[in-house]
Amino acid sequence: MKKIDTTSIVVDPFNTDFCQRWTWTMLGKTLLNAAENHAKARGFGMMDLNGRHYTWVLSRLTIEMQSMPTAYHNVNVSTWIENIYRLFTNRNFAIKDEDGTVYGYARSIWAMIDYETRQPMQLEQIEGEQFQAYLLPEEPCPIAAQGRVRALTDADYVKSHHAKYSDIDMNSHVNSIKYIEHIMDLFSIDDYKEGRNLHRLEISYMAESRYGDLLSFFKRKVSDNKYEVEVRKDFIPGGDRGTPIVRASLEFS
Amino acid sequence: MKKIDTTSIVVDPFNTDFCQRWTWTMLGKTLLNAAENHAKARGFGMMDLNGRHYTWVLSRLTIEMQSMPTAYHNVNVSTWIENIYRLFTNRNFAIKDEDGTVYGYARSIWAMIDYETRQPMQLEQIEGEQFQAYLLPEEPCPIAAQGRVRALTDADYVKSHHAKYSDIDMNSHVNSIKYIEHIMDLFSIDDYKEGRNLHRLEISYMAESRYGDLLSFFKRKVSDNKYEVEVRKDFIPGGDRGTPIVRASLEFS
Repeated sequence: MKKIDTTSIVVDPFNTDFCQRWTWTMLGKTLLNAAENHAKARGFGMMDLNGRHYTWVLSRLTIEMQSMPTAYHNVNVSTWIENIYRLFTNRNFAIKDEDGTVYGYARSIWAMIDYETRQPMQLEQIEGEQFQAYLLPEEPCPIAAQGRVRALTDADYVKSHHAKYSDIDMNSHVNSIKYIEHIMDLFSIDDYKEGRNLHRLEISYMAESRYGDLLSFFKRKVSDNKYEVEVRKDFIPGGDRGTPIVRASLEFS
Repeated sequence: MKKIDTTSIVVDPFNTDFCQRWTWTMLGKTLLNAAENHAKARGFGMMDLNGRHYTWVLSRLTIEMQSMPTAYHNVNVSTWIENIYRLFTNRNFAIKDEDGTVYGYARSIWAMIDYETRQPMQLEQIEGEQFQAYLLPEEPCPIAAQGRVRALTDADYVKSHHAKYSDIDMNSHVNSIKYIEHIMDLFSIDDYKEGRNLHRLEISYMAESRYGDLLSFFKRKVSDNKYEVEVRKDFIPGGDRGTPIVRASLEFS
């Protein structure tokens, strides 16, 4: 079996924003679905693992878009495994139009955890796995690796909400991409006006959250086009500082 | 050209809820996209109309699901125009699996409005339109037409939020399906637990809302399985009663 899979998708008009750009929510979910379908076809999708009491957990995601496809355009999303390490694996993505013109790239880092203990598995030692057969380190993914987002202070607090039904995905946790939607909603619609785009998003998933958890959002402006965001669980203004669960940086163009 | 179009879609795992059921958000957006693609193929999609300063506005939507497809299942969504009236047109949907087994049906009512004046157009008198050529009143859509949802009282107030970037779609209004997502989030995750499903949703869109508008949600329990919801713009508790913009009823099974 080949090492890279390409999924074709049309940007449906109701999956676009007020400038008819594909939403980052749909882009993000398309990446996760492409990853899952690639893994599933090779015997190590979520469902295959669930039967063996493991599951994949997304640890980091970096998406850098040169431009965002608009309504009715075709998008080809390719995904492949760059490498595998003791506790992590890197999976990359290329997002192109039907002629091969690049919209953007993405990098992701995943761990496999034991469903009960939530402890990471040693990926190189899992019996019967075929990961090694599918590594494709030579495939180019010409965007910088993820940087480090600093902890934010209580002074950067913006707002809180309890995780809702629509936040929760098949793993019974707040969906990785829903965090991105909430983070993007910390910005005004003027930050997305015609000609201004979210260019690069880096996000680190540090801990899981579940239905009903109190999620608090912190935001700091680094420069005119760059922001850092932190999401904490169980933050109480003036009280408990809470647990950081997500850190992100956003760069607009 | 035939009168009915069928779109095939696979239920991607990251578009499912905690029970691996396809989300109503994805179902709803798939219906709207199927409607738009059907209209576009026949020369009266949103973009075609925009060039002529008209646009479609969804007035009512009723969705009744016997069961909800789960991850990796194929779904065929068919759509056709049932009839056309002076100011409205009825468009229906059938949602089936690849063998033709029914998941559910939907009914929708649309108006065409002048983009500037927001006044409805007389659909039977629009020059050069081919609507009449595509009517298919004989195609069965065996679910009841939409009932009337009563106005709710201030005592039924649940919560408010300002319309966010992710609420807004290509028409620069709060997306019709995002209201459904927010309405479903008025219920606890226990209301969606295994074996309990949202069976029927009726929703009336009475007025538009835009970015930044204050949306307030009201909810009344009618019986163990039936609820009514109202969304108002610019409601101030104890003050302005606001303008009703959406009314819905939900029936769980």
